[in-house]
Amino acid sequence: MPEPTIVALSTPPGMSALAVIRLSGPESFSIVSGLFSKQSLAECKGNTVHFGQWRDAENQLIDEVLVTVFKAPHSYTGEDIVEISCHGSVFIIRQILESLTSRGAHLAKPGEFTQRAYLNGKMDLSQAEAVADLIASETKASHRFAINQLKGGIRKEMRELRERLVYFLSMIELELDFGEEDVEFADRLEFALLLEEIESRMKVMLDSFRIGQAVRSGIHTVIAGKPNAGKSTLLNSLLGDERSLVSDIPGTTRDTVEERMIIGGILFHFIDTAGLRISEDLVERMGIQRAHQKIREADILIYVFDPGEEDALEVGLALSEWKDGIPYRVVVANKLDLNPDLNERAYKESLPSDISWIALSAKDSGQVKHLKNLLYSLASEGKDLQSLPIAINARHVDILQRAMTQLTEARKLFDDRSETDLLAQAIRRMSYELGGITGEISSEELLGNIFGRFCIGK
Amino acid sequence: MPEPTIVALSTPPGMSALAVIRLSGPESFSIVSGLFSKQSLAECKGNTVHFGQWRDAENQLIDEVLVTVFKAPHSYTGEDIVEISCHGSVFIIRQILESLTSRGAHLAKPGEFTQRAYLNGKMDLSQAEAVADLIASETKASHRFAINQLKGGIRKEMRELRERLVYFLSMIELELDFGEEDVEFADRLEFALLLEEIESRMKVMLDSFRIGQAVRSGIHTVIAGKPNAGKSTLLNSLLGDERSLVSDIPGTTRDTVEERMIIGGILFHFIDTAGLRISEDLVERMGIQRAHQKIREADILIYVFDPGEEDALEVGLALSEWKDGIPYRVVVANKLDLNPDLNERAYKESLPSDISWIALSAKDSGQVKHLKNLLYSLASEGKDLQSLPIAINARHVDILQRAMTQLTEARKLFDDRSETDLLAQAIRRMSYELGGITGEISSEELLGNIFGRFCIGK
Repeated sequence: MPEPTIVALSTPPGMSALAVIRLSGPESFSIVSGLFSKQSLAECKGNTVHFGQWRDAENQLIDEVLVTVFKAPHSYTGEDIVEISCHGSVFIIRQILESLTSRGAHLAKPGEFTQRAYLNGKMDLSQAEAVADLIASETKASHRFAINQLKGGIRKEMRELRERLVYFLSMIELELDFGEEDVEFADRLEFALLLEEIESRMKVMLDSFRIGQAVRSGIHTVIAGKPNAGKSTLLNSLLGDERSLVSDIPGTTRDTVEERMIIGGILFHFIDTAGLRISEDLVERMGIQRAHQKIREADILIYVFDPGEEDALEVGLALSEWKDGIPYRVVVANKLDLNPDLNERAYKESLPSDISWIALSAKDSGQVKHLKNLLYSLASEGKDLQSLPIAINARHVDILQRAMTQLTEARKLFDDRSETDLLAQAIRRMSYELGGITGEISSEELLGNIFGRFCIGK
Repeated sequence: MPEPTIVALSTPPGMSALAVIRLSGPESFSIVSGLFSKQSLAECKGNTVHFGQWRDAENQLIDEVLVTVFKAPHSYTGEDIVEISCHGSVFIIRQILESLTSRGAHLAKPGEFTQRAYLNGKMDLSQAEAVADLIASETKASHRFAINQLKGGIRKEMRELRERLVYFLSMIELELDFGEEDVEFADRLEFALLLEEIESRMKVMLDSFRIGQAVRSGIHTVIAGKPNAGKSTLLNSLLGDERSLVSDIPGTTRDTVEERMIIGGILFHFIDTAGLRISEDLVERMGIQRAHQKIREADILIYVFDPGEEDALEVGLALSEWKDGIPYRVVVANKLDLNPDLNERAYKESLPSDISWIALSAKDSGQVKHLKNLLYSLASEGKDLQSLPIAINARHVDILQRAMTQLTEARKLFDDRSETDLLAQAIRRMSYELGGITGEISSEELLGNIFGRFCIGK
């Protein structure tokens, strides 16, 4: 049975100059031809645009539109595609969608166009995932990861590893064919080196997960401290002139609860919190409770204090409260201008060694710049984001962890000089797992999970 | 000096499968060629689509895009146009826009594309106005008015009237040329008939203004009455099963303060108000004050009452409070099921004759349907919206009213058998005014006013 022809609004809903409605499938041309004034789309050349009138099933004029024809297999999905560019009116969009479904087009599910592109071999699964990441990208770093993956970064990596595994596997299987003869076609030393290389490459990829996640969804950076430590001044100073909100396209909504800022291409969510102190006031206590909650969820905690008010012991005590679960903690000794003789060493000694320390005056933008650099290097884990080839997602982590289990098993069997057939089995399993990343091996459920997170119309 | 090349995002901002960025102007092809992987757009045929990579000024890959080429004069604006269809990511959109402005494209002002279409003779001013109306159309009726105007409804009307005026004017001027000879080239009877016809046509158009406005912006229908008269039940029943909200495209925001509903293709804004009574409670009194404010601004007031609680005198008294400024008032005798012996005549007699009366039970959807029909016929003023040729806007009203003044003047001069040159002057002025509707006669300021209300990107 042929796939049904699908249709969706591919641009955001809302009033605008243009809206684009997209159809894909074998019936695209015939469904449109009854509604669009140009009758013979099937006879048009691919990649051509046609102006005409759109009429509904009752022959009422709905709009003047531009219709673009893409012919299989030279299209995004690999199927016949028609794109209708109409005026961006809520009424017109609905009428055109209704006229198309009344002639047999199905409303597309989220990601269904890209799913078809994958099923028709136009891209592998990791590239399809990159399309969703690309659409969601708000910053330079998240965009770069997505575009690298779209260009096939992880696919190349995986393909090479799998090819070498499969080659080795075929040698092992040849040995099995020869059964009793006890020959060795597969070079054992080479295999040991291969396993080592695969392990180290998988580790690099797994390590890139957290940084990839952070880059995708932004770094939650919570500013905490006692009242009047200078938290708000510091936040304003951080946002300062170089304020680079992601929402500077007119009309984009902006989250007002927290401030968003891009540093070195990475999105930071800065969350200012209520001053921490013992309070009898119920409203204030609720604010402090929320502050503690925010701190526990932080990727980076910035603890700001006034050296004139808090000594080393107090700061150390405050920080010891949040020693678990927060990836990075930064202590900022503020009001350096008022405390020129600050004994930094005494403070640092009272703090655990994994805590970053910086002394500054929140009013001095040059000093605050050092803090920005520190935040960037923590978020990027000291790596050059431009050169990181790939950032994997949670699904990839899952696969890599299962492949890692198989690898450990294979290595153990290899070291024990176990039966060749058990070794072959472990290698086969590892190869199978790695194939899931690019979708060479896939299941219905897996595809549903991946394409379900897309926008409708892609 | 040639017009600069302009660029804008033509689809709504926000994350989506696609976004379309549009350039128009003489430099469109040369600006794009440095950024898009296909170098020679100027050599491509018009109305063709090209797949390729978009790179920014630093040669960084930004996205894989589809670029459509339209060649002057065969384009919306009449200029060279390039449309870039990219992934709908905030970051990508911004990068592409920046790469284009860095190469000399100017960010377009609202309506600037359509303004160019008008200036290049692709459409007249009334059609350009229709484009904005079309984009804003949410309902069948507002859509129909806009599409009729886009098809040139008002232009045809105006052109014909002006042509006949200009013909008559030329005859009159011929008479002036012959000076003393006292000949009459212009048929005075024909002219009298023409003036009469113009007057009646202009009156029809002026009459269509209110209904056109109502259809464009929706009918504000305020439901008022004493507490427990059944206002909320009536509103729920009106919205009932046939609830047809205009915002049923996913993601469209919806106004929660009032309920919107389409009846017969016309948008109604229903506003439920606080029960009207004398109250000591400050908060309640503020609510009642707001209710009175809403009633004064209503297009239609629905006064709901319970016949078991309010007698004819009380209802008449309540209605007398809002006798001015509200175009339509409807009195609903609710709870008909509890008051089967309702003396409708006594109530009707206590009410002014221009008030509509309906008795029903708000719980009975069949009876509520009569109210819906009544609301529709009030809003459409009993006219068949499908057959109304045009709906004019406030600018047209202004012009028509000035033309009407000149017409009255011309008619007076004609009746008085005044000097031919004074008559010619009045006709010339009338013709000039009418030319403003289609933009045959226009000014800078006028164009600014019209195109300023467009979306950016159109």
